[in-house]
Amino acid sequence: MAGRFITFEGGEGCGKSTQCRRLAEALREKGVEVVVTREPGGTRLAELIRGLLKDERDDPPCDRAELLLFLAARAQLVKNVIGPALASGAWVVSDRFSDSTFAYQGYGRGLPIDILRMANDFACGGLKPDMTLLLDVRPETAIGRMRRREAETNTSADRIELAGAEFHARLRAGFLELAAAEPDRIRVIDANGTPDEVWCQVRQNMIQYNIF
Amino acid sequence: MAGRFITFEGGEGCGKSTQCRRLAEALREKGVEVVVTREPGGTRLAELIRGLLKDERDDPPCDRAELLLFLAARAQLVKNVIGPALASGAWVVSDRFSDSTFAYQGYGRGLPIDILRMANDFACGGLKPDMTLLLDVRPETAIGRMRRREAETNTSADRIELAGAEFHARLRAGFLELAAAEPDRIRVIDANGTPDEVWCQVRQNMIQYNIF
Repeated sequence: MAGRFITFEGGEGCGKSTQCRRLAEALREKGVEVVVTREPGGTRLAELIRGLLKDERDDPPCDRAELLLFLAARAQLVKNVIGPALASGAWVVSDRFSDSTFAYQGYGRGLPIDILRMANDFACGGLKPDMTLLLDVRPETAIGRMRRREAETNTSADRIELAGAEFHARLRAGFLELAAAEPDRIRVIDANGTPDEVWCQVRQNMIQYNIF
Repeated sequence: MAGRFITFEGGEGCGKSTQCRRLAEALREKGVEVVVTREPGGTRLAELIRGLLKDERDDPPCDRAELLLFLAARAQLVKNVIGPALASGAWVVSDRFSDSTFAYQGYGRGLPIDILRMANDFACGGLKPDMTLLLDVRPETAIGRMRRREAETNTSADRIELAGAEFHARLRAGFLELAAAEPDRIRVIDANGTPDEVWCQVRQNMIQYNIF
């Protein structure tokens, strides 16, 4: 069977990383070869770019530089990891991909969506996910989870997490609008519940691939 | 008098950095406020990106990631340095700018020029140099200078300098083609001579600004 490219999307604290791991484990139990990756990141260069995006506070990237850095990391990830994995027949499960660009840089920062789509197509050579799972949470849920994570890991919020409630509201509305425009590819999942409850819905959406 | 944006272009070893400094000094002697910058670089973030472009050998950027990193550094430089300087009436003298992207990533790496132009316009918000001085040298001259610099500074060539004679030949042809298409803006200077000889030609081209 051919490899599939599955992405998880959503705002901070929606539970993407947990569900990514869970899907990868479930697929591996069925004997499927899986490559798990995250954005920005997933290659040495892309992780270095991630550092610039997350932690550079003395000279934080302007909106355009931010976009271009995200796309540079994506170009490298597609070329060196995702493309070869799919070509070899593996599944790729990614924590974020292009839809994050449209939501964060488009709806969040206000950069024009048509330019974002063109630049993104260039960066990833036209590659699109086969299926995208949008984990949608209410703002209260997201904030509660982020606070808990900060307390548990003894870390503080990064530059993007700190962008403010209004930014995150625009982001959520943006993600939902993207999903409404491509309902076949982007499946909205109510991610306010427990990891088990969310996983049930993720698994449900995989039925069409006849794996589980 | 309004600020001017002057860029120097050309392959490795053409003497850009020397002439940049020289022009800036001459302008300052005439009481002109000058900001000198270089690409990629010129801001803290852009210099970090420069490091990724020049020195990353374990996971070197693919062609598209390379382009997007250059453009990210440019976006930051235009937004935080060049734009404000020009707005305040200063002159900006830059060691490389957009034409390097068209020459290196277009003619050198073979990325489509129309996409490069669009992406570059986005990165620098449409800003174009008032005048570009293309320092053209024969390959033998360039190689001799690079070898001498490596010996003097006890450094080795970086990733882009190492790209090979054929790449550098395409690059030179590309720069000359760009100049032929915009002869008013891009002035070709024979840079095979001594720094004094080259400086004479640079100075000559500045006559229209009534500074010297």
